[in-house]
Amino acid sequence: MSTIPENTQIGNHVVIEENVQIGENVVIGHHTVILQGTQIGDDVTIGNSCVLGIQPAANQRMRKSSKSNARLMIQSGTTVGHLTSIYSGTTIGRNVFIGDHASIRENVAIGDESVVGRAAIVELNTTIGKNCTIQTLAYVTGDTTLEDHVFIGPCVSMSNDKYMGAQNFSLKGPYIKKGAKIGNNASLLPDITVGNNTIVGAGAVVTKDLDDHITAAGVPAKKINF
Amino acid sequence: MSTIPENTQIGNHVVIEENVQIGENVVIGHHTVILQGTQIGDDVTIGNSCVLGIQPAANQRMRKSSKSNARLMIQSGTTVGHLTSIYSGTTIGRNVFIGDHASIRENVAIGDESVVGRAAIVELNTTIGKNCTIQTLAYVTGDTTLEDHVFIGPCVSMSNDKYMGAQNFSLKGPYIKKGAKIGNNASLLPDITVGNNTIVGAGAVVTKDLDDHITAAGVPAKKINF
Amino acid sequence: MSTIPENTQIGNHVVIEENVQIGENVVIGHHTVILQGTQIGDDVTIGNSCVLGIQPAANQRMRKSSKSNARLMIQSGTTVGHLTSIYSGTTIGRNVFIGDHASIRENVAIGDESVVGRAAIVELNTTIGKNCTIQTLAYVTGDTTLEDHVFIGPCVSMSNDKYMGAQNFSLKGPYIKKGAKIGNNASLLPDITVGNNTIVGAGAVVTKDLDDHITAAGVPAKKINF
Repeated sequence: MSTIPENTQIGNHVVIEENVQIGENVVIGHHTVILQGTQIGDDVTIGNSCVLGIQPAANQRMRKSSKSNARLMIQSGTTVGHLTSIYSGTTIGRNVFIGDHASIRENVAIGDESVVGRAAIVELNTTIGKNCTIQTLAYVTGDTTLEDHVFIGPCVSMSNDKYMGAQNFSLKGPYIKKGAKIGNNASLLPDITVGNNTIVGAGAVVTKDLDDHITAAGVPAKKINF
Repeated sequence: MSTIPENTQIGNHVVIEENVQIGENVVIGHHTVILQGTQIGDDVTIGNSCVLGIQPAANQRMRKSSKSNARLMIQSGTTVGHLTSIYSGTTIGRNVFIGDHASIRENVAIGDESVVGRAAIVELNTTIGKNCTIQTLAYVTGDTTLEDHVFIGPCVSMSNDKYMGAQNFSLKGPYIKKGAKIGNNASLLPDITVGNNTIVGAGAVVTKDLDDHITAAGVPAKKINF
Repeated sequence: MSTIPENTQIGNHVVIEENVQIGENVVIGHHTVILQGTQIGDDVTIGNSCVLGIQPAANQRMRKSSKSNARLMIQSGTTVGHLTSIYSGTTIGRNVFIGDHASIRENVAIGDESVVGRAAIVELNTTIGKNCTIQTLAYVTGDTTLEDHVFIGPCVSMSNDKYMGAQNFSLKGPYIKKGAKIGNNASLLPDITVGNNTIVGAGAVVTKDLDDHITAAGVPAKKINF
């Protein structure tokens, strides 16, 4: 049985499955699907044609993420754009903004006041701090950590698989420390660390760890002295 | 009250809100949502599961684009693909083609006969000329100008924020002159100009203005002599 | 007339047009649209808000792909994610996985057990072998061949038009041989060949053919000796 307060503003052809909890003053756009178990806080706005609370799926060549009882939780004051997909087992903090066409996988945590841009993708098991900005079409791979106040420019790419499927491996994405800024279309390799407040130039390819408080650019990325 | 001629071909579960004006011989796919105030010209074809006429939204860390009375206007003969999102305050010219999964923000103007590719994104306050081609997954940032006959290759990335959120700034995207061609996956920095008929190679990173009638490539992009 | 077995599990507001054939034990998510002529094998699972079996469209500046009687065929055991679009005239093999927000054009063949990632795009007239992995946000252009066991990293970009619309041309994408692996955000130019088991580094720009069994990286990509 779902909890849907009388002050919920629900569009046409909305589907709300079983065991969904909705807070006060929530707006749900036309054609949006809220799958079972999803929990939505007060004052949340959800756009049109979204799919929320998806259970993971895979074929036999993919990493299995076991179906869990973990719910999708969207905390109060958050805005979710149109045509987005968000998985179960993920928690989205307060006053977050999720852009249109974005997709967020299972077992992700996104801190308060962060922004996930239009068509940006966040893969599974990733943690994003508070006040982060992930811009349009950026790709945050699985098993990644962004500390607070990190800026990921548009079209930034990351990977978490050193051997590109060729060996057994433990997947590990980048670790990006507080206040770091990654320029547009930069590429980050698996398991590298970007230091506190470090700046990576547009189009750079980061193949090694970068120290705190530096600026790096180029292919491969090297420290720039001004 | 909306104007919907009898010759409109409307799919199943379509939502048409108030004050929508639809021209003659329009086709609207299943599950498409047309939000209030949208104006659609004659002989326009709209795919399935689109969301058209969206009012801007933001959280407190994002630039506010005030809600306006400006309408989304789609002019005659234009085709809009499936699963697209287009905002209010934008004008799309005649015989334009918008690919599936594309997203176009508010206060954008797109000239006649232009093509916006599959999953391409055009951000707010951007002007695109006539006969432009923006290919698949390209990212045209906000506050950008493309003159006529510009070609933007697939996966091209642009940015409009020099300080990546760190300072107060006036956002300014690239200015791309008539007939310029940008190769696939090139990165363009904020506020640079690409000259008339200039060609930028695939994967180049353009950090400075480029003259007319040259070819530039590399990281950073430099003029190539043949 | 469509064939829909009694054991089909159909979500709310699903649209199934004429002449659709559905196998045994198929699951179809809420709001999904299955256009006329589509053929779906046994044990296929389709997510929410998909559009399947699309007929090609274009404006006068785009290549015309004549409407055909060819159907979209999705073979048994395959899983299709949410918010995807797939065209008619395409065949998707057995036990394939298509990620959310992916888009696959007309006249494409995808071999058994392959994976097409989240928001990845496969353009028209492209052939993908068996056991391939195309990762998130990768762009596989038209007129491209991937042999078996190819790995395409996240955000990889390809192009198939050497003159970027400036001349008459015959479009030709890359040819990627068996077991090759392309690192994240690499750019591949038109009509290049990547050899058997060759590895291309992240962010590389491949401008020429690459031999078998080598590793190449950089801008432009060159062979690396270890």
